[in-house]
Amino acid sequence: MALATTTTSTSLDFGPAVALSCRECGARYELGPSFACIECFGPLEIAYDFGRVTREQISQGPANIWRYRSLLPVPVDVASKPNTEPGWTRLVKAGNLARELGLRSLHVKDDSGNPTHSFKDRVVAIAVEAARNFGFHTLSCSSTGNLAGAVTSAAARTGLDACVFIPADLEQGKIVMASVYGGKLIGIDGTYDDVNRFCSELIGDELGDKWGFVNVNLRPYYAEGSKTLAYEIVEQLGWRIPEQIVIPVASGSQLTKIDKAFKELIALGLVEDTPYKIFGAQAEGCSPVSAAYKAGHDVIRPVKPDTIAKSLAIGNPADGPYVLDIARRTGGGVEDVTDPEIVEAIHLLARTEGIFAETAGGVTVGVLRKLVESGRIDPDAETVVLNTGDGLKTLDAVSDQARPTAVIRPSLDAFRAVVA
Amino acid sequence: MALATTTTSTSLDFGPAVALSCRECGARYELGPSFACIECFGPLEIAYDFGRVTREQISQGPANIWRYRSLLPVPVDVASKPNTEPGWTRLVKAGNLARELGLRSLHVKDDSGNPTHSFKDRVVAIAVEAARNFGFHTLSCSSTGNLAGAVTSAAARTGLDACVFIPADLEQGKIVMASVYGGKLIGIDGTYDDVNRFCSELIGDELGDKWGFVNVNLRPYYAEGSKTLAYEIVEQLGWRIPEQIVIPVASGSQLTKIDKAFKELIALGLVEDTPYKIFGAQAEGCSPVSAAYKAGHDVIRPVKPDTIAKSLAIGNPADGPYVLDIARRTGGGVEDVTDPEIVEAIHLLARTEGIFAETAGGVTVGVLRKLVESGRIDPDAETVVLNTGDGLKTLDAVSDQARPTAVIRPSLDAFRAVVA
Repeated sequence: MALATTTTSTSLDFGPAVALSCRECGARYELGPSFACIECFGPLEIAYDFGRVTREQISQGPANIWRYRSLLPVPVDVASKPNTEPGWTRLVKAGNLARELGLRSLHVKDDSGNPTHSFKDRVVAIAVEAARNFGFHTLSCSSTGNLAGAVTSAAARTGLDACVFIPADLEQGKIVMASVYGGKLIGIDGTYDDVNRFCSELIGDELGDKWGFVNVNLRPYYAEGSKTLAYEIVEQLGWRIPEQIVIPVASGSQLTKIDKAFKELIALGLVEDTPYKIFGAQAEGCSPVSAAYKAGHDVIRPVKPDTIAKSLAIGNPADGPYVLDIARRTGGGVEDVTDPEIVEAIHLLARTEGIFAETAGGVTVGVLRKLVESGRIDPDAETVVLNTGDGLKTLDAVSDQARPTAVIRPSLDAFRAVVA
Repeated sequence: MALATTTTSTSLDFGPAVALSCRECGARYELGPSFACIECFGPLEIAYDFGRVTREQISQGPANIWRYRSLLPVPVDVASKPNTEPGWTRLVKAGNLARELGLRSLHVKDDSGNPTHSFKDRVVAIAVEAARNFGFHTLSCSSTGNLAGAVTSAAARTGLDACVFIPADLEQGKIVMASVYGGKLIGIDGTYDDVNRFCSELIGDELGDKWGFVNVNLRPYYAEGSKTLAYEIVEQLGWRIPEQIVIPVASGSQLTKIDKAFKELIALGLVEDTPYKIFGAQAEGCSPVSAAYKAGHDVIRPVKPDTIAKSLAIGNPADGPYVLDIARRTGGGVEDVTDPEIVEAIHLLARTEGIFAETAGGVTVGVLRKLVESGRIDPDAETVVLNTGDGLKTLDAVSDQARPTAVIRPSLDAFRAVVA
């Protein structure tokens, strides 16, 4: 395990980031490729000295996540180096879906517009800067699919080698996307949790020396990329924190970082300190956090995933306990939906807003509907729901229903026969 | 055929657009759902009275095509109505690919970031405004796949009905995407040209009354959307026209509109009047324009397409003669590449720049390489190449080669065995 050390190079450039800090005991360490506290084995996260940040500075930045570079662990000239330029995706005012669900104001943050069509491009872009800083030559990860494509794409563009690990049974679109950029793609016979355990072993081995595992030894940096979802939503709403937000939960990291980002914006005076409720969304076939939430537990009991929402199929979610804290503290919650409800929600979002979501987007929209129907979402409060992936990568989920109305000869008579 | 008429409603709002004008004889008509001149049957295009347009106005607009609303046939409040908000996609500085090809400066305009992951969202967004203006209730098209998805998605979001027509043998990703948004998807047993002829018949029939066929009776409006590719490239280059640009040729409309847009920007004083060369790119299996160019002909001889680049498989390209004119006038050219060269170019772009292109992107990158190797592209001149679609929609083109390096048990020994 890559525990924190106190020795580090002085040539590192992480912009406003000044240290690693233990989320559990608060111990501080110099910035390095470490992810666990030597005192208590708690997870490390980035501590900052932000200085002055203004809305004007931000709005003059590029139309990608680097407009928030002064809030991220990246050098000030990050935008001028080759990278995939993710972010600044559409915040879609979802009037049709809102009407159908009975909500006053609903927006969909549609992250399928990113370079490899999932939010993972955000987190990987930050990890690349860490890999460069630490002199790693190979970018790696354990992945349920989306991350593997984001890592191999970013490695290709930035000139790093790539070697990524996935469960062997993923969707074809994700496998092709993870291998087309070159680098090594290794399928593992097992679940994502097996892949993850294997990667932890590899980090301790000389084989994995000089490798940056974006979601293991670079995790503290990588995870900060999810903050940009929150920054963008706030800026795109006209510098306002939404009153309610529904976020998918896999490891739980994204949800915790969105909460962190809201708090940062408030602390920096960039946005008014208004209350917000955070809701986590899981698939019933992999719902350890939702189960703990409903049972009133603080501890997550790992599960063996069985759901079509493979990008959320993490049975042992590292940040699960923090998700519970945040859901309870903000007055939100955690809910889950079945596979048929996921498919139904994909179609609902597609036919109301023209957005074709991955199964993970079916999970958030399905959970949103369930929360509305059970009265746990205030229909008059401003609500945002996340779509973090792309339907083209999970075609099988909808291909039974999404097919031609009819196949005909090119004649008006044949057409009349099918539309009559 | 929807010939131009001189009667029209006075309540139409097309912003700076003032008339339809025949590209052949110059006859002018009031704005209406027409596409052919009653004098000479030439194609109609939009004529404008632009007024004063400044870079500053544009730069203050939204991060989508509506920043150019004062150069398009759309109402001034277009951005506030539900639409898919396409455009402002990445212009990627492709240093790795440039080095590999021996070019000094190369950018890839990556239109896979659009809502349905092709440039078609641009043209459809303009057609939607025309359909609204003319009171049409149904949005329709003949399509090689990408357009069908763009139309059904936009219809869902804007509250119009959709009924779209495709050749029945398209890629699964395109079929699913075209049907998931609801509306009717009709597969036609035949080529794209058969589908197109069928749609022309349907327009003359009462069945097609009140239907807006985006690429037939709304074509003059629709086609203007391609101009936004040129506006964005120029603005993203820092208000400079690239010296060389490689553009895919299907109907040829996109290429002619990019040329039109460069000329507009020069005429409006928004950019310096510098020379540029336009190159058209086709697949060898559907290369009627390239064949005419090489033979020195002015007339296009239709072909029956047989290529993996299905989104470019238009055997009888309406704007082919204009493409020839522009290629010759600007000192550019038209070239084609074989299917294996297309696949090779998809991999080349993916491994150098982390961009996973559709077969159409393989065509442009493959043609770029061929033009460099044969000395027809100046390696020292600033060059832009277009990727207009997304590799996730044409997985079959690369799925033979894009697969895992190995599938192993989760153990270090198993991993050592495959990387040794």
